[in-house]
Amino acid sequence: MEICSDLLIGQQTQAGSQGSTQSIEAASGKPLSPAFGGASAAQLDAACALAWQAADVYRELPLESRAAFLEKIAQNILDLGDVLVERCVQESGLPRGRIEGERGRTVGQLRMFAAVVRQGDFLGVRIDPAQPERQPLPRVDLRLRYVPLGPVAVFGASNFPLAFSVAGGDTASALAAGCPVVAKAHPAHLGTSALVGQAVRKAVADCGLPDGTFSLLFDSGLEIGQGLVSDARIKAVGFTGSRRGGLALLKLAAARHEPIPVYAEMSSINPVLLFPHALANRGAAIGTAFAASLALGAGQFCTNPGLVLAIDSPAVDAFIDAAATALAATPAATMLTPGIHQAYESAVAKLAQHAQVDTVAQGKEASGPAQGRATLFSTTAEAFSRDPALQDEIFGAASLVVRCPDLATMRDLVEKLEGQLTAALHIDEADQADARALLPTLERRVGRILVNGFGTGVEVGHAMVHGGPYPSTADGRSTSVGSLAIDRFLRPVSYQDMPDALLPDALKRANPLGLTRRVDGKLTTAD
Amino acid sequence: MEICSDLLIGQQTQAGSQGSTQSIEAASGKPLSPAFGGASAAQLDAACALAWQAADVYRELPLESRAAFLEKIAQNILDLGDVLVERCVQESGLPRGRIEGERGRTVGQLRMFAAVVRQGDFLGVRIDPAQPERQPLPRVDLRLRYVPLGPVAVFGASNFPLAFSVAGGDTASALAAGCPVVAKAHPAHLGTSALVGQAVRKAVADCGLPDGTFSLLFDSGLEIGQGLVSDARIKAVGFTGSRRGGLALLKLAAARHEPIPVYAEMSSINPVLLFPHALANRGAAIGTAFAASLALGAGQFCTNPGLVLAIDSPAVDAFIDAAATALAATPAATMLTPGIHQAYESAVAKLAQHAQVDTVAQGKEASGPAQGRATLFSTTAEAFSRDPALQDEIFGAASLVVRCPDLATMRDLVEKLEGQLTAALHIDEADQADARALLPTLERRVGRILVNGFGTGVEVGHAMVHGGPYPSTADGRSTSVGSLAIDRFLRPVSYQDMPDALLPDALKRANPLGLTRRVDGKLTTAD
Repeated sequence: MEICSDLLIGQQTQAGSQGSTQSIEAASGKPLSPAFGGASAAQLDAACALAWQAADVYRELPLESRAAFLEKIAQNILDLGDVLVERCVQESGLPRGRIEGERGRTVGQLRMFAAVVRQGDFLGVRIDPAQPERQPLPRVDLRLRYVPLGPVAVFGASNFPLAFSVAGGDTASALAAGCPVVAKAHPAHLGTSALVGQAVRKAVADCGLPDGTFSLLFDSGLEIGQGLVSDARIKAVGFTGSRRGGLALLKLAAARHEPIPVYAEMSSINPVLLFPHALANRGAAIGTAFAASLALGAGQFCTNPGLVLAIDSPAVDAFIDAAATALAATPAATMLTPGIHQAYESAVAKLAQHAQVDTVAQGKEASGPAQGRATLFSTTAEAFSRDPALQDEIFGAASLVVRCPDLATMRDLVEKLEGQLTAALHIDEADQADARALLPTLERRVGRILVNGFGTGVEVGHAMVHGGPYPSTADGRSTSVGSLAIDRFLRPVSYQDMPDALLPDALKRANPLGLTRRVDGKLTTAD
Repeated sequence: MEICSDLLIGQQTQAGSQGSTQSIEAASGKPLSPAFGGASAAQLDAACALAWQAADVYRELPLESRAAFLEKIAQNILDLGDVLVERCVQESGLPRGRIEGERGRTVGQLRMFAAVVRQGDFLGVRIDPAQPERQPLPRVDLRLRYVPLGPVAVFGASNFPLAFSVAGGDTASALAAGCPVVAKAHPAHLGTSALVGQAVRKAVADCGLPDGTFSLLFDSGLEIGQGLVSDARIKAVGFTGSRRGGLALLKLAAARHEPIPVYAEMSSINPVLLFPHALANRGAAIGTAFAASLALGAGQFCTNPGLVLAIDSPAVDAFIDAAATALAATPAATMLTPGIHQAYESAVAKLAQHAQVDTVAQGKEASGPAQGRATLFSTTAEAFSRDPALQDEIFGAASLVVRCPDLATMRDLVEKLEGQLTAALHIDEADQADARALLPTLERRVGRILVNGFGTGVEVGHAMVHGGPYPSTADGRSTSVGSLAIDRFLRPVSYQDMPDALLPDALKRANPLGLTRRVDGKLTTAD
């Protein structure tokens, strides 16, 4: 299959007329063809206009049509076959197995949201029926449902070229919520984006949906991304990337005539907390597992364990020794882009020179372009406490071990942490009292607390929170992974004393959709 | 009962040491004693420190304790008896019946949230149990609950001295969510605030809760309000007031090191849409009812009908004539504050001088201080479309009728409206097709759509949305009235592979709280 470099403006394919851009083959550093023309301001405008036109139609389609559309996207992605996997491996430098797994996750997400849409609980229906006899005043009839916010801009993420890109979690949840999507491809995987974009475009046509339900734009600079966030027809933004990038989008969104929510996942160092009994009983095993989590995918995960807080004891050495041994045997890995690799190298070099930081382990020496070498550092609690820069995320397989003299110090350090996506506790039963003492702090600081595991490997389910207090995400009231992610793109509307003929089906008196609805505050499936 | 002018810093009472301020008797314009000392920066700091200390304890109390606390507040407010009602009438100028009704609503809200807390559905529990046998990888155990954001700053609103003030909807929903509250009294009703504050303070003591669960501050300027929003320990803000005030708080919140959500309800003109058959059949009756809604409470409601869009026909005259007749017989009414009265008078005078606007009716002439006289204006669709200033809210009993030549024009005008709290459709059965054509636009523009009624009189229930797209509120994804308001102060946290002993009760495997929980995506009460 040829990769088409056209923008997708609804069903229209158009060559981008503003500059040109190419992805780089991660392993070789060489540019890949084709070159992709960047969207012009007029092309951006056309995509937003189509999305706006599509919004009212798309959102009121039967739930079954919306669900079938999501499933069709999944099937069309699978139908791309090996072309997609190969291109994605080329562009990302990630191993084939990982990309196949990520494709499975991407397809699985779309199917999960199809099931969520069919079930309809996300509509959050609430009904307070009229009470004409109430004294002193009759009660009106009130019926509430959630409606989609409107067109959503989705920014593809570099580190999940399938699962958090053109048809990834943000797109799937926005489409599931009933929002058209205008996606901006990440420059690191333009070919992957184009292929997936065509799969979505075809699904729109297959299902007979309005043209503007989906568009895909390439950007030769930053203008199109900025223009998207500023466009009055865009009503929300999904973004995963750097803190600098996320903050820039937040600023743009806040400066609009009508500010809009930006769901930006920005940075997290995902503390791993090591407790004495767990360390004493299996410090080495934890160290080995930690090294595997750290090096996974060249460390290019939002949930990468970038910080280890250990309550000091001789067993900490067993942990470090095992981690160091494992890392020393870990081959360097191709990073996503030359830019990411360069940023990683320079952050690691800077940390290595820090007067209070020791380099305790390194992965195998690297050769070839963009090879990232895992690195483990250590420092004291005092130094960590004193220098906030030691909390800065290093995107890649670098982590910092901090020895804490006692539990109180560990808690102090956690209190000083910025908001995080995850925290991982390694405990044995005898550590539970200590762990319990930390939970209130952790609940305030992180989105997911896990026990005896690592944050990498984010399960896509109903109970997942992949989110967390600022700055791990821009809006800690949300998750970007799992079925709850749909809530980001919805708002409630209440209908008072509306005749059945005008009510949406979800709110009609006979409950024709068979929904579970909250009637007078209690959930029921009755009409 | 003597009114104590002290700040409430947790259980401590302290005279405010920063300047001094007095409320004005609305009907006479004379200052009321006592004078209230404004909080100093140190006193603000003390209140925030106590709230922060209380937060982790308060949020993990059994749900029953939290519910009993809310009920205790309600009882203590009732126990204030007539002193509260009299002071509130004096300060607000609102009639006694209205204040008694508002006290009923305030107490009702607190009791409703007590029931919501006891039920526990607001915890939003989701469980994806482990699947150790899953291939290719075992599935972890994931359990999600919502946790409170932390201490909330509540700004009392001038126009609901009980129901949206110290122990009003924002405070009730924040406390229900598990958040301590630091309230800032509105300068227009300091005595009312002090009395209600003492009722809450006593409830904290009665229930043996942590001191910092509630504090009440007076402000002799703007510094304490600004300081509250900027304080790192405050994690969300509830505000009802002017657009200027709301935007100022939003700016402060966005400039923090950690931005926080501000739930600001700012301005709305609540369009009333009149359709031909309804007008032909009962234009006069609608006009009379409209005039009553417009003049209610001197028009000082967020949901006051400040705009009428009518599809033109001779029947529009019947509507206007009846409204004019009713308004002409409407006595002027005491407005909340001299400042609000002055702003009303000057906005009405400005509109009266607008070249494209006619004054079609006025209420009875006013005498005495701060008397607001209802006023009805009219203009053309063309003029309304051309001048965005005609959309500006006039806080008080002023409204503008716009004659629309046809349905398409009406829809165009609605598309051009800013976000609104409500829209009211007046329709007969033969108007339904026209009304249906407007619904998609209305759903995008307003929080509550009502039929054959007016937005004033906001029912406090489960299906109410008192919210709406920007700028009617700062965050259109929320409501400030009704049980759903609790969601504003919550965020999700996920627990992975956590032993039962460490899990909060809501998530324990045996479901000891008997909650309805979403297990593998389906609601169930099972363990």
